[in-house]
Amino acid sequence: MENLTMLTDLYQLTMMQGYFVNGYRNKEAVFDVFFRSIPFNGGYALAAGLEQVIEFIENLRFKEDDLAYLKGLNIFQEDFIEELRNFRFTGDIDAVQEGTPVFPYEPLIRVKGRIFETQLLETAILNLVNFETLIATKASRVVTAAGKGPVMEFGLRRAQGPDAGVLGARAAFIGGCQSTSNVLAGKRYGIPVSGTQAHSWIQCFPSELEAFRAYARTFPDNCLLLVDTYSALESGVPNAIKVGLELEAEGYHFQGIRLDSGDLTYLSQEARRMLDEAGLKKAIIVGSNDLDEETIFSIRAQGAKINAWGVGTHLITSKDSPSLGGVYKLAAEGEQGVFHPRLKVSENISKITNPGIKKIVRFYNRSGKAMADLIALDDEDFSDRKSLTIFDPIQTWKRKTLTNFQTRELLLPIFRAGKRVYEPPALQEIQEYSRQELNSFWDEVKRLANPHTYIVDLSSKLFELKQELLLAIHNEIKDNKN
Amino acid sequence: MENLTMLTDLYQLTMMQGYFVNGYRNKEAVFDVFFRSIPFNGGYALAAGLEQVIEFIENLRFKEDDLAYLKGLNIFQEDFIEELRNFRFTGDIDAVQEGTPVFPYEPLIRVKGRIFETQLLETAILNLVNFETLIATKASRVVTAAGKGPVMEFGLRRAQGPDAGVLGARAAFIGGCQSTSNVLAGKRYGIPVSGTQAHSWIQCFPSELEAFRAYARTFPDNCLLLVDTYSALESGVPNAIKVGLELEAEGYHFQGIRLDSGDLTYLSQEARRMLDEAGLKKAIIVGSNDLDEETIFSIRAQGAKINAWGVGTHLITSKDSPSLGGVYKLAAEGEQGVFHPRLKVSENISKITNPGIKKIVRFYNRSGKAMADLIALDDEDFSDRKSLTIFDPIQTWKRKTLTNFQTRELLLPIFRAGKRVYEPPALQEIQEYSRQELNSFWDEVKRLANPHTYIVDLSSKLFELKQELLLAIHNEIKDNKN
Repeated sequence: MENLTMLTDLYQLTMMQGYFVNGYRNKEAVFDVFFRSIPFNGGYALAAGLEQVIEFIENLRFKEDDLAYLKGLNIFQEDFIEELRNFRFTGDIDAVQEGTPVFPYEPLIRVKGRIFETQLLETAILNLVNFETLIATKASRVVTAAGKGPVMEFGLRRAQGPDAGVLGARAAFIGGCQSTSNVLAGKRYGIPVSGTQAHSWIQCFPSELEAFRAYARTFPDNCLLLVDTYSALESGVPNAIKVGLELEAEGYHFQGIRLDSGDLTYLSQEARRMLDEAGLKKAIIVGSNDLDEETIFSIRAQGAKINAWGVGTHLITSKDSPSLGGVYKLAAEGEQGVFHPRLKVSENISKITNPGIKKIVRFYNRSGKAMADLIALDDEDFSDRKSLTIFDPIQTWKRKTLTNFQTRELLLPIFRAGKRVYEPPALQEIQEYSRQELNSFWDEVKRLANPHTYIVDLSSKLFELKQELLLAIHNEIKDNKN
Repeated sequence: MENLTMLTDLYQLTMMQGYFVNGYRNKEAVFDVFFRSIPFNGGYALAAGLEQVIEFIENLRFKEDDLAYLKGLNIFQEDFIEELRNFRFTGDIDAVQEGTPVFPYEPLIRVKGRIFETQLLETAILNLVNFETLIATKASRVVTAAGKGPVMEFGLRRAQGPDAGVLGARAAFIGGCQSTSNVLAGKRYGIPVSGTQAHSWIQCFPSELEAFRAYARTFPDNCLLLVDTYSALESGVPNAIKVGLELEAEGYHFQGIRLDSGDLTYLSQEARRMLDEAGLKKAIIVGSNDLDEETIFSIRAQGAKINAWGVGTHLITSKDSPSLGGVYKLAAEGEQGVFHPRLKVSENISKITNPGIKKIVRFYNRSGKAMADLIALDDEDFSDRKSLTIFDPIQTWKRKTLTNFQTRELLLPIFRAGKRVYEPPALQEIQEYSRQELNSFWDEVKRLANPHTYIVDLSSKLFELKQELLLAIHNEIKDNKN
């Protein structure tokens, strides 16, 4: 990834100049990255994008042509531009590991540093984390719907630009996809790549049969034939069977066929019958064509004979919910390491933020199942508690007492004083970690439709701090009016 | 933009090897880029992305580490990898100018060359053209809804990755946005940048008034204040008025305020009244907060007093329709410049392609209004005709006779024998060209809801060719069955 220092909103730079000239240059701040609701009405999201955030921060520096451009805007002072020339991130970052199931209001990334520098980071961090978290979550749903059938991501041509294709393939792999069609993503992140031939291949030969034979000659070990260019059942499948039998006669294993249009339930059942009758019982059927988790779930429920799924547009653009509303909100400000918790009020209760320097504690029962998360202040410790009563921060009468629990803190140190202290795992490890993490959640939380809501409460200490600050702000506004 | 040669689907490379080893290495092909339906149920789309396609093609070459990666996949032959090492595009490309209003089935880009090379181009071309065309079209709708009020694009934090933010800002500008918050897009494409301060700025000062004053001190000429951190009407607007009057007293022009939450109709009317009563009649009100064309249209219809609009997530992700289904379909294949038209059949009539090497002819009436487009074969000429009867290619009884027309061909030569023969215009020129082009369409076609369907027919010659080929394929499938 190239240097993304300039991938920011202008207002970050105008605010930075404002802090610079108003004596707030060394003021410190803590920002939280979090989202307010789970996309797709799902039960969880999978955090992703941290590796790109790390890369962004490690490459942070303004190049001379960046500075020349900013100067040319005629809104920045010379001494401020000079300050940007030496800009490096010198703060601390904590974050949840990629692939971790996460929930609304949990700080996925916590940035602490001079406000001058933390402000600049907002836009790129949100851009990267919002998109990758969204796609990893969507992919996880598609993979859940597909059951044991592997899911191949191949949405690049409909992705929202090159990065969306490449980072989307990465996030989809975290979410459990088995491969991508995207060669650049394969090269960059070591994701297995897959793909065979398109309709144009079939059309370029005098007949479908000749096209199939030519492909089989070239890739006898990896021969998956696209059968719907003319007519799947009347032409494609019969021709594929001919070529498949020829390959098997030569000692190769015929891989199978791909259906890319029509009714996948009906066509796959008919194609399966034809393949089986011809003795090609091991040939697989791949289904594709505008699939998403709902369609896959529904097609499977009808008994379609599909062994693997190719998923494009709906996954790579997260079509039914193409943005995650992750935000970057001030949680505390201070000086020389002494911080004051801050919150943002709003008419809309869901937009009120949680104040202070916080962490996430996940509570597991004896059999290792996740029971609840607590958003707590950083200095709280629950590991020695025998029992703990938690309560919903809105409907405070909803209480639950946890006993016999083990706790785990989700935020890990990523940067300290500007230096990276975390080694990002390989992508395959992230995928496996995510799979195991999801295993620690009840199936009810992972259901595609109307899942059970996983409990995420505030610690009593955080809850009380929030109430105090809310009251103080309301009193202040009232005083101003009088 | 970096080298995007590897931004392709694996199957393009497997097909290339297939053509390479099966004696089809020099076979030639013509591919069309087109979409099948207008997004947002709108009346037109604006073509965009050509400049990025040109850049992609001019930078096409496999680097050594790309070739090493491909070799490591163990599916490609040594001589094929060697062929890739010398790969350059040597064909012809024709395309419609960026910013041109376009319609379903019109070839926006036509690629002619050796199938070996035209195949590789598919994925990246679609990725770039699908996304930018989608966002330019969405932006055009938002700008239409906003009427005379300028629209500022500021969706970067919710864009689907860095490129989506940058290319999206570019496309949004083509569609008529006035500025972007995205500094990198501003630098790269010369788009005006805008932005002032966020809620975190207000929260970092002891009080809102102090925060406003600090901002006014820093940017007295460009002081637009965000008034909804605590309470827009009880705190934000009164404080902004104080600071605005202080600025005006010092001889500066106070720019105005931004409302970013709550009911924009009500708040803007109240804020307008308060500003006017304080004598700040020239201060503007900017509205933002999850806006799209429908909300803007509706808020304006209710008499909101908003002078300019900030539009983020809905625009940059094209939230209600986040993908354009542009495809790249074989239209002809041949050898040594002699081409045979080809089409793809489908059970779904809308998925049958138009065969042959084609062009788009736009017919204007005497007053310069666009009356209809004709997709025709490349060697047809209508400019000398006195009258022409055109007909709908599905409902062929729907006929219309054009007289007194002027014609214009939309496809321009972009590459000839691999050399660029076209100089892309500056982005500002594209925006202005697009604005003028839209002026040549009736308002009925540009209506946001239920627009009039602009006529796009096939020439009689193309229509007949298509019928012939369809019949031939159906007979062939029937013969195969017998």
